Amino acid sequence: MRVGSFSPPWIQFADQKQEFNKRPTKIGRRSLSRSISQSSTDSYSSAASYTDSSDDETSPRDKQQKNSKGSSDFCVKNIKQAEFGRREIEIAEQEMPALMALRKRAQGEKPLAGAKIVGCTHITAQTAVLMETLGALGAQCRWAACNIYSTLNEVAAALAESGFPVFAWKGESEDDFWWCIDRCVNVEGWQPNMILDDGGDLTHWIYKKYPNMFKKIKGIVEESVTGVHRLYQLSKAGKLCVPAMNVNDSVTKQKFDNLYCCRESILDGLKRTTDMMFGGKQVVVCGYGEVGKGCCAALKAMGSIVYVTEIDPICALQACMDGFRLVKLNEVIRQVDIVITCTGNKNVVTREHQFLFWPFRAGCIASLRTPELTWERVRSQVDHVIWPDGKRIVLLAELNGLSG
Amino acid sequence: MRVGSFSPPWIQFADQKQEFNKRPTKIGRRSLSRSISQSSTDSYSSAASYTDSSDDETSPRDKQQKNSKGSSDFCVKNIKQAEFGRREIEIAEQEMPALMALRKRAQGEKPLAGAKIVGCTHITAQTAVLMETLGALGAQCRWAACNIYSTLNEVAAALAESGFPVFAWKGESEDDFWWCIDRCVNVEGWQPNMILDDGGDLTHWIYKKYPNMFKKIKGIVEESVTGVHRLYQLSKAGKLCVPAMNVNDSVTKQKFDNLYCCRESILDGLKRTTDMMFGGKQVVVCGYGEVGKGCCAALKAMGSIVYVTEIDPICALQACMDGFRLVKLNEVIRQVDIVITCTGNKNVVTREHQFLFWPFRAGCIASLRTPELTWERVRSQVDHVIWPDGKRIVLLAELNGLSG
Amino acid sequence: MRVGSFSPPWIQFADQKQEFNKRPTKIGRRSLSRSISQSSTDSYSSAASYTDSSDDETSPRDKQQKNSKGSSDFCVKNIKQAEFGRREIEIAEQEMPALMALRKRAQGEKPLAGAKIVGCTHITAQTAVLMETLGALGAQCRWAACNIYSTLNEVAAALAESGFPVFAWKGESEDDFWWCIDRCVNVEGWQPNMILDDGGDLTHWIYKKYPNMFKKIKGIVEESVTGVHRLYQLSKAGKLCVPAMNVNDSVTKQKFDNLYCCRESILDGLKRTTDMMFGGKQVVVCGYGEVGKGCCAALKAMGSIVYVTEIDPICALQACMDGFRLVKLNEVIRQVDIVITCTGNKNVVTREHQFLFWPFRAGCIASLRTPELTWERVRSQVDHVIWPDGKRIVLLAELNGLSG
Amino acid sequence: MRVGSFSPPWIQFADQKQEFNKRPTKIGRRSLSRSISQSSTDSYSSAASYTDSSDDETSPRDKQQKNSKGSSDFCVKNIKQAEFGRREIEIAEQEMPALMALRKRAQGEKPLAGAKIVGCTHITAQTAVLMETLGALGAQCRWAACNIYSTLNEVAAALAESGFPVFAWKGESEDDFWWCIDRCVNVEGWQPNMILDDGGDLTHWIYKKYPNMFKKIKGIVEESVTGVHRLYQLSKAGKLCVPAMNVNDSVTKQKFDNLYCCRESILDGLKRTTDMMFGGKQVVVCGYGEVGKGCCAALKAMGSIVYVTEIDPICALQACMDGFRLVKLNEVIRQVDIVITCTGNKNVVTREHQFLFWPFRAGCIASLRTPELTWERVRSQVDHVIWPDGKRIVLLAELNGLSG
Repeated sequence: MRVGSFSPPWIQFADQKQEFNKRPTKIGRRSLSRSISQSSTDSYSSAASYTDSSDDETSPRDKQQKNSKGSSDFCVKNIKQAEFGRREIEIAEQEMPALMALRKRAQGEKPLAGAKIVGCTHITAQTAVLMETLGALGAQCRWAACNIYSTLNEVAAALAESGFPVFAWKGESEDDFWWCIDRCVNVEGWQPNMILDDGGDLTHWIYKKYPNMFKKIKGIVEESVTGVHRLYQLSKAGKLCVPAMNVNDSVTKQKFDNLYCCRESILDGLKRTTDMMFGGKQVVVCGYGEVGKGCCAALKAMGSIVYVTEIDPICALQACMDGFRLVKLNEVIRQVDIVITCTGNKNVVTREHQFLFWPFRAGCIASLRTPELTWERVRSQVDHVIWPDGKRIVLLAELNGLSG
Repeated sequence: MRVGSFSPPWIQFADQKQEFNKRPTKIGRRSLSRSISQSSTDSYSSAASYTDSSDDETSPRDKQQKNSKGSSDFCVKNIKQAEFGRREIEIAEQEMPALMALRKRAQGEKPLAGAKIVGCTHITAQTAVLMETLGALGAQCRWAACNIYSTLNEVAAALAESGFPVFAWKGESEDDFWWCIDRCVNVEGWQPNMILDDGGDLTHWIYKKYPNMFKKIKGIVEESVTGVHRLYQLSKAGKLCVPAMNVNDSVTKQKFDNLYCCRESILDGLKRTTDMMFGGKQVVVCGYGEVGKGCCAALKAMGSIVYVTEIDPICALQACMDGFRLVKLNEVIRQVDIVITCTGNKNVVTREHQFLFWPFRAGCIASLRTPELTWERVRSQVDHVIWPDGKRIVLLAELNGLSG
Repeated sequence: MRVGSFSPPWIQFADQKQEFNKRPTKIGRRSLSRSISQSSTDSYSSAASYTDSSDDETSPRDKQQKNSKGSSDFCVKNIKQAEFGRREIEIAEQEMPALMALRKRAQGEKPLAGAKIVGCTHITAQTAVLMETLGALGAQCRWAACNIYSTLNEVAAALAESGFPVFAWKGESEDDFWWCIDRCVNVEGWQPNMILDDGGDLTHWIYKKYPNMFKKIKGIVEESVTGVHRLYQLSKAGKLCVPAMNVNDSVTKQKFDNLYCCRESILDGLKRTTDMMFGGKQVVVCGYGEVGKGCCAALKAMGSIVYVTEIDPICALQACMDGFRLVKLNEVIRQVDIVITCTGNKNVVTREHQFLFWPFRAGCIASLRTPELTWERVRSQVDHVIWPDGKRIVLLAELNGLSG
Repeated sequence: MRVGSFSPPWIQFADQKQEFNKRPTKIGRRSLSRSISQSSTDSYSSAASYTDSSDDETSPRDKQQKNSKGSSDFCVKNIKQAEFGRREIEIAEQEMPALMALRKRAQGEKPLAGAKIVGCTHITAQTAVLMETLGALGAQCRWAACNIYSTLNEVAAALAESGFPVFAWKGESEDDFWWCIDRCVNVEGWQPNMILDDGGDLTHWIYKKYPNMFKKIKGIVEESVTGVHRLYQLSKAGKLCVPAMNVNDSVTKQKFDNLYCCRESILDGLKRTTDMMFGGKQVVVCGYGEVGKGCCAALKAMGSIVYVTEIDPICALQACMDGFRLVKLNEVIRQVDIVITCTGNKNVVTREHQFLFWPFRAGCIASLRTPELTWERVRSQVDHVIWPDGKRIVLLAELNGLSG
């Protein structure tokens, strides 16, 4: 899909600077809140301990680090973790045969020679395999993280060690976040001609700070629904001056990532954060799109008793024919152990639903941020919300931005 | 398992004749009601039409029939149907590789030479494969039906044609039923030395009418729970004078017949009698033993929403861990589409459960035989029970004697 | 979907008569072969015995029958079977809540008043519910069968008894087939203004014999892929003069009929014709579209080991992610017990695949019609094909026209 | 089950000291190797980071720690982690309703008053809930770890903080292991009267070092197959002088822990260590007992193509009826992605099986410890074994001691 066209770009662009002058706070804040609440990594790393065990509290921005070839064009937590990260990448390579085959097939040809790609995504082992494939095909890349929490430090270190200018670490501040993005694009003697973005923050930063840079941009690939939404708004306003691709439009994203990856990751994510068993648990899944279908399939297979809420009649009928009882949330909320929201809609789960639940997305939990409820952070991204009477729910508010 | 021992047999036997003199009416009636309500075939034949299409209303007992070799030592509906029955048997042979392998292996050896087996089971293509295997191994067999409805006439004809003394047809009267059994045992110059029984009627007939015949009996194989129960009673009373094997004690019966065969046959049986779809239907299964497990697995896979009632704590926990919501019948009876009883217990489903249901066994439906309810026979073994207000339930009272 | 438009119709129409003069043989033959080989009923009736048991060999065309209101504007096997058929219809009504709700909602309004619908479909209890709903909404209907085998005689009788002009019986000859269709449209003082067709035979008959009748036709609903294909050809040639709807374009057909109905009916159909168990059987399913997905889901749930052949890469990847091993037919043909073709493509299963298989559609079995192979009809629509060496396969060539 | 009896105890006991004098090396070594290779935790903690992040390399044995009540009768990694551990325990409490109900029910009654229990198990949040329940019921407990790796340090800290004498930390040396056990039993003024053991090391330590202590022991509960095996050997030799219970004899262990817990934990464990997706992966599971059944169910549900090897005919037939293709390992080893051994038998997977595999138990991988193969530790309990030609397999040798 192309969400934009090449003209008329620059006039609107000028007008628009105005608007973007207001953004550093507003949009930046929104972007960041998105970074926190909606996005996260698809791949939990068991290597987290390497990252966490750092006793070094110095900000990476204040460190002087060089890789073994003497380059210091990167900013990561600890370049010494590169070897651990390399092993993570090697494991990921075994699971990504298509990209590995592509490397082999394009060997020596450098079909991407001349491509200068600036990227802003989660920095995981899988991203590393992508970046190194782009590099193997001849592209030059500079990369930042699209999320202040999701970077695997040792993977970032491995990328830096092998010569990629990577600017990302786990636990960036908001200022760090934008500083890293800026370090990717604001480089003496290098201008990107392609953007790979997840969430739209990189695109907006360039748009606002370096509008002229767009003249050289051949295209944008946007991975997230949020980012695409922002691009559509630009396009409608006649201000999108480069072609853009929506990754979600590909059938493999809709029918595979959303369905099968959720089927694989829902229990993994919940188990890692809660250590629960799912056999015999009563679960209500809100929404029976591809994400909901994947979650329901996994839960049913694990012996959970699954209820579904759904307003779309076709999806509702599918849920029914797949053996899930269709309910309204109110009917079951007092008897279920777990609530999973597989919809981006707001207000799906509200204050009246007072029991244990695990929303997937942030929008639906606003009503829980009230003075009489106590929030207690148990682990990263796991909160207990405690009612005045002592009842507590476990909230995985930011568990997973599965469908981007 | 041996439910009896060889001694002390004959004295009690004499005493006991007394008791059996009362049986022709009482026990006979009970046996027959069992035949009607509890037993039926495991294998529905699509060849039923051959059987049903007979325009011949003459009782087989009044017919003069000979097979192609001139023998008339049999009594079946119509010997001319033998060819159709032979094809049914050939199909069944392909699905019974163990018996077919046994025939091949024992070829020429006749390990069962001298065995004189009298049998009383459902007369189906599968039984025919068993009988012809017994014959191939050297045994002599005479056979009657254990159920007045379940005989496949064309299979009986095929057996008669190939020389087996078979006395059975679909739609026997009670008198026919005992007459057929008697024709198997009351033969000039032939005495059985083994009994293969399903339900205990044959055993009891011999016990009562021909007590001396037991002196030559080497053993009894009993296929049904009911029949075994009767044997245990005899054994406790010290009156069982021959060893008996309970087929249900074999692991293959418990873990395969009950589980996997029910999984295969539950939907088949319900669909043939009702033409229903099961996706999205709400079903409550009473009992989560092996039979219930098989039914639940099939229904869940077909997209039904399945509830389970169970009083045994281990089985109840298994149902729970397998993803079935445990309920009391009263909680769900008004919302479910189908009730399946996988327990032999009485009074599981009572009058208060007024909606659509399909009990598996007969015991639970006594309360529906009341004057204000109208019973209407829709098809063989399918009844509509109509309430004064017009509401109707569909009753498959005698669907299947799955676990014997 | 509209596969045609209202103009330019009539000129081509005149030209076209020419072409249709050649059709009585050619198209008629093809239509009929389709009727035999590709279509059949979606709903097997357990009431078949009522139908089959008729001892009356007189052709319905030669009978004088009247319903209880004195009408003789119908032609069915035996009007006396109406009561049995009525019970079948009543059972079907319980499974078709949407149509029943429609009857209730439109009560008294007669929104279809003025509609004169001529139909040509399988005559089953479900069709009867549809027809009686159309009648309840005010439409006038006349109906023939689209298949010479699939009519349920007692249902046809019930429809005739309640006043519907139905012309259909099980076991029509080719001449009967066209005679019945003609009786629906060639009526003094009645002209249809809507066509409901399954296979296109009715449409073509009108097109050829009564071209002027199209002037009053408001639209065609076509249920089958074959019929739609014929309409598209007409449309491309500029000769389709009425709007037509392709039922297959509706999401409920693609995503429900094909997927869930096949899931429900595949085992039912195979079991009724073969009495096989499916646990542990190795099965290869050719094609992983919606039909294949439904079949695979049912077989997997029943404990079969399922292989899939598929050439479409997305469907192939789905099969893989759903846990089915992707194979070429040749790799597994010698080890599998069952072959199911869920594709209309020809030559999927060829002569080299010599073992047991059960093709779904007719196209793929041409190579088995050779002199050295013996065909033996076992039951209706079940053939044994016997090789010179005695090996036999069971062929369900015409089992089911599931996706129409 | 009672694997022993109360007599004749003491005489043999004296004789037996002799034998145990040889044990410090031999048996100790064996015990420890068991600790490393066969046992591990059932519950992976996502709290691992708290534990790992310790920058403190001092041995706990050399530290002076006190809990907030001033007690120093414990030895854990870092008492300051108690609060984190308390939250882990609180989460676990929500998943252990039976024990929590027991606490409530026995409240105030102290039915275990007088019980002095010494335990040696994995120290996890679940164990903590058990210990605190024992405490709430009136028992006194002292506890050590049965495995040098599996202790969750923060949970141990929480137990120590709330007053339990716990002697355990992650990463004990062999000497530490026995020191901790000794600290549990060798206490001034306190003698245990019950043993709860997992693996038999505690029992043997007491047996060898403090034989007189057995005079006060009322019974042993042994959780592991290995430990029970050792008890049976003692019993056969007439040397077991206290009654012992085999946890594995309980139906809930066999039918729930083994089946359902493996179903829940197999993918969890594999995903945490490998980040693999399982959809479409080919997996061979060696053994179809309860553990194998659980693994196969989980893998099948996740879209894996699962093969089974099994020598027991009943289990093999079950695998077949459940839809798993029975194979010999050699037939599929070159095509599968993953090998899972669900059997304790040795030599199931041998050197000839050179590809990617993940044995569950240690016995089967001996042939990989050869000079020409390079072992590289990737993460805790994850090794790469690299062939001379560069091919590598990923080995999860010590993943899980699921069935004890």
